[in-house]
Amino acid sequence: MVVFNMADEIFRNNNTVAPVVHNISNIVTANDCANITLACGGSPTMAQHPEEVEEITSVCNAFVINMGNIEEPLVEAMIRAGLKNNAINHPVILDPVGAGAAKKRNEVLFELIDKIKFSVIRGNISEIKFLATKNSSAKGVDADENDKINDKNINEVIAFTKKLSAKTGAVIAISGETDIISDNNKTYIIKNGHSLMSKVTGTGCMLSSVLGVFCAANPKNILEACAVAVAAYGYAGELAYNDIINNNAGTSSFRNYIIDYMSKMTADMFREGAKIEIR
Amino acid sequence: MVVFNMADEIFRNNNTVAPVVHNISNIVTANDCANITLACGGSPTMAQHPEEVEEITSVCNAFVINMGNIEEPLVEAMIRAGLKNNAINHPVILDPVGAGAAKKRNEVLFELIDKIKFSVIRGNISEIKFLATKNSSAKGVDADENDKINDKNINEVIAFTKKLSAKTGAVIAISGETDIISDNNKTYIIKNGHSLMSKVTGTGCMLSSVLGVFCAANPKNILEACAVAVAAYGYAGELAYNDIINNNAGTSSFRNYIIDYMSKMTADMFREGAKIEIR
Amino acid sequence: MVVFNMADEIFRNNNTVAPVVHNISNIVTANDCANITLACGGSPTMAQHPEEVEEITSVCNAFVINMGNIEEPLVEAMIRAGLKNNAINHPVILDPVGAGAAKKRNEVLFELIDKIKFSVIRGNISEIKFLATKNSSAKGVDADENDKINDKNINEVIAFTKKLSAKTGAVIAISGETDIISDNNKTYIIKNGHSLMSKVTGTGCMLSSVLGVFCAANPKNILEACAVAVAAYGYAGELAYNDIINNNAGTSSFRNYIIDYMSKMTADMFREGAKIEIR
Repeated sequence: MVVFNMADEIFRNNNTVAPVVHNISNIVTANDCANITLACGGSPTMAQHPEEVEEITSVCNAFVINMGNIEEPLVEAMIRAGLKNNAINHPVILDPVGAGAAKKRNEVLFELIDKIKFSVIRGNISEIKFLATKNSSAKGVDADENDKINDKNINEVIAFTKKLSAKTGAVIAISGETDIISDNNKTYIIKNGHSLMSKVTGTGCMLSSVLGVFCAANPKNILEACAVAVAAYGYAGELAYNDIINNNAGTSSFRNYIIDYMSKMTADMFREGAKIEIR
Repeated sequence: MVVFNMADEIFRNNNTVAPVVHNISNIVTANDCANITLACGGSPTMAQHPEEVEEITSVCNAFVINMGNIEEPLVEAMIRAGLKNNAINHPVILDPVGAGAAKKRNEVLFELIDKIKFSVIRGNISEIKFLATKNSSAKGVDADENDKINDKNINEVIAFTKKLSAKTGAVIAISGETDIISDNNKTYIIKNGHSLMSKVTGTGCMLSSVLGVFCAANPKNILEACAVAVAAYGYAGELAYNDIINNNAGTSSFRNYIIDYMSKMTADMFREGAKIEIR
Repeated sequence: MVVFNMADEIFRNNNTVAPVVHNISNIVTANDCANITLACGGSPTMAQHPEEVEEITSVCNAFVINMGNIEEPLVEAMIRAGLKNNAINHPVILDPVGAGAAKKRNEVLFELIDKIKFSVIRGNISEIKFLATKNSSAKGVDADENDKINDKNINEVIAFTKKLSAKTGAVIAISGETDIISDNNKTYIIKNGHSLMSKVTGTGCMLSSVLGVFCAANPKNILEACAVAVAAYGYAGELAYNDIINNNAGTSSFRNYIIDYMSKMTADMFREGAKIEIR
């Protein structure tokens, strides 16, 4: 499988490029996003003043917009930095936190998508479904049970994901018990991860920051970089879950162990654990 | 004791309702508040843009206002979401962080209390004393030694707590070495917890978020839900303290273990550890 | 060595004064800054509304400005609280996060330095070099490889550090693999710490908060308090590194262990581990 062959190169690039990744994040998960960026071999810059972001983002290798907070100056900073990254052809990743949850939030979301060309859009199934179909059942920021991917609806999900990719030009990454990473043409289905990851805040936000590092270091292979990143992150969750069971620990230790495993993840570990199917 | 009989139902409701709890928090402890909400069986939504909060809070089960940050747009969001929750009869919990510490902060506090009907107000003894008597000795956000509850002043504290409850209509929860949970009529005195909890930032903020989950899932038994929540949280602190002593760990691990134990807490564990007295 | 003789007194003061330290921090590391303040024996107050900070900072023992976020109201709060601390002769510590990274950020930095008299300025080598020479190679918030202190450039670094101290009246603390703590006259060179500390976000921010506690409790011995604090913090990093190697853990546990060790640090431990040279 092509993605496995590329895994060595992808992980190697993370370490040799050691990309600086600009993240505009939120007050809940900014610390976790910065720490997982470092864990993956990147260096985070979290600048968010509208008047500084263009200058700062210019010397970075990629830019991650996390839509957790949508205060006006933040949105202005997102747009300025996004346009600058578009101008210099650097990857821009969007995490549409809470897409569909409120009119105001949706307006911000569509303004961002309208103005900025994204390389990757990563969300949970409810968020991506809303983006693709203007329809979702989510309350708050978590995926709704009714939206979850199963054997029955997976083809439908892949279909609207491909359509959304065609429309936006972005690789679409849906994370959850089943992950779908797709462009207009090719789809990776990933079965890594553990359901307990939904009991830690920011596991989605952190994954978007992980994608920031992988895309920054592998800008010519965005689709594969995303597939490898998502599987590696899910596998880190599985390993972390084993540890908390062995240590009789709980959800806070689980968060720490996920970041720990990402800081120890190698191409070899990835190959042992990745569960990726291509369609 | 009535509270023990209800503990099973209270914990069961946390898991079956799995409430979505809206928190407006602060930049210091938002991550911990979200994580402990998840640990208790809830799902946190931390939206804070004034124009989105009414829509978002409407589909939640309770709302927690943490007054750590008092920037104007945040306060507007607190008031909008608070009024919406009042209109739909959902529990609203207030954490009056730093009550008494500055004129501006006090103005915000009294505006919130004036406009919003709270189901629960939880603070340390200095904060609640200020609210009840306009008087406290606190510097910063920690309770002052002079204010601490002891055998001598406990009846006086209970008296002003009941009066504050009568005035506001809220259950009053004072957390510290001795916790007091009281409405106008009935008082629970809780002796769980460990003094090292004051060496972790946000142990008070997290408790307010815990109350958010317990009240959201048990809206008809707010007083009992608060008593069970406070005792369970204090007991988690005791268990966490044992672990850091056994592991020769420190205050950061202590924070993690507290959240870990809340994610593992059951009605059975609670019954083993709770030290609750009714007056 | 004089600093070792003073270590007992310095650590004792941290615990007996138990200073309240006002920090204006940023959304990425505020939680870590508050927790390490507590770990060192201080009590953090993180108030940041411009209209409350003068009143709140007046009853604190020191004030730490972390320039991570530079939104206008935050900068106003920094200046108001800084001037108030100057008026009452309390130590003010500056962490010039991202100095040199953008024009806007530099303007804020020079406004702060212009208006406020700092007792201590702590940054990485790129940040301090920019302050001293208006020149640095940094991208983002991490020190640049080209700037790093080595045997060849150390005398040059000490020279511009002393000059910066003379100009600002502040003790200058450069943290990195080699730490330099200097006033106009005397320089401490510290070799504690571990390179993995650069893989945890906020290790610099946390150190600035540590300096806040040590200076607040030892306002008459700022230079020595800084040297002891920097060495103790670096040694905590070494001990934490040993633990993650022994536990096969990663960077998130490393962060926790650093804070853990600061909460357990004593004058005796310090004396065992400190690697301080005086020039």
